[in-house]
Amino acid sequence: MSNPLNLSAPAGEPSMDYSREFDFPVSDVFRAHTDPELFARWIGPQDLTTRIDVFEPRTGGAYRFVQCRGEDEYAFRGAFHALRQDDFVLQTFEFEGYPDVVTLEYSTFTELPGGRTLLTGRSLYPSVESRDEFLGNGMEEGMSSGYNQLDDLLASLPTEAPEGRE
Amino acid sequence: MSNPLNLSAPAGEPSMDYSREFDFPVSDVFRAHTDPELFARWIGPQDLTTRIDVFEPRTGGAYRFVQCRGEDEYAFRGAFHALRQDDFVLQTFEFEGYPDVVTLEYSTFTELPGGRTLLTGRSLYPSVESRDEFLGNGMEEGMSSGYNQLDDLLASLPTEAPEGRE
Repeated sequence: MSNPLNLSAPAGEPSMDYSREFDFPVSDVFRAHTDPELFARWIGPQDLTTRIDVFEPRTGGAYRFVQCRGEDEYAFRGAFHALRQDDFVLQTFEFEGYPDVVTLEYSTFTELPGGRTLLTGRSLYPSVESRDEFLGNGMEEGMSSGYNQLDDLLASLPTEAPEGRE
Repeated sequence: MSNPLNLSAPAGEPSMDYSREFDFPVSDVFRAHTDPELFARWIGPQDLTTRIDVFEPRTGGAYRFVQCRGEDEYAFRGAFHALRQDDFVLQTFEFEGYPDVVTLEYSTFTELPGGRTLLTGRSLYPSVESRDEFLGNGMEEGMSSGYNQLDDLLASLPTEAPEGRE
């Protein structure tokens, strides 16, 4: 059974906050966000496949990935402003179909008791309108579906089972 | 005589907008923003000297520079999310003394008649409080002083004099 995605988008502020727990240790959850092969296996809605073009998971690195459904392609790109192992990622994020509308994405990885993880995210948009447009285009459903796929991926990783996890 | 810096920081919104005209062509103004040797000669208040640590002026590149006054050092770093020659730069910006408080900085370079340039900037802060703290710590004066130094630098560059410029 999956943990819920908790997402809030305060009225009148160009931001979005979310949190999601995982029944897996921080090191695994962080790795799935920063290892391009793992990342491509869970990010986004289930009916899209992801191709990684560039992925330099380090402070000052860049990334670009393309999601495909049949002949449709959706490309996303940005820079890693900061990356601290098992702790924190701050990146820019742009959907190339919506050029120069760039989001700043803060992700914090916190260890919970029992080998579990809390992921906390904060996204800052250039305007309330652009945030609402992303939300209106299925972003929450896409994130939720992606995190459920991430659960499945994490369950399949060959890792030591921490306490409190089946 | 220098052109004024026009800066506005709307109440309750975590942003800042500014514009500044230059009596020099776009190619020169853009070059002074993206050539590390030139950039170090004008950025920031007059009583600071600037050392460039990293400067990769391209989409996906990183930068870091350190400003010194006596033994005091102030370091700034970020990533170039997008850079289009003579047109547009979008970069992240962090003062290392205020860690993880990261600004998104949009800069647009527009050609004006007579070989002149309009620089338009928009900075997005993580909060109104952080923006106001930067403003309260002399940011506007530092920018204004830097642009006056940029005028002097541009006047000294060996370039073809465009129409309408002495």
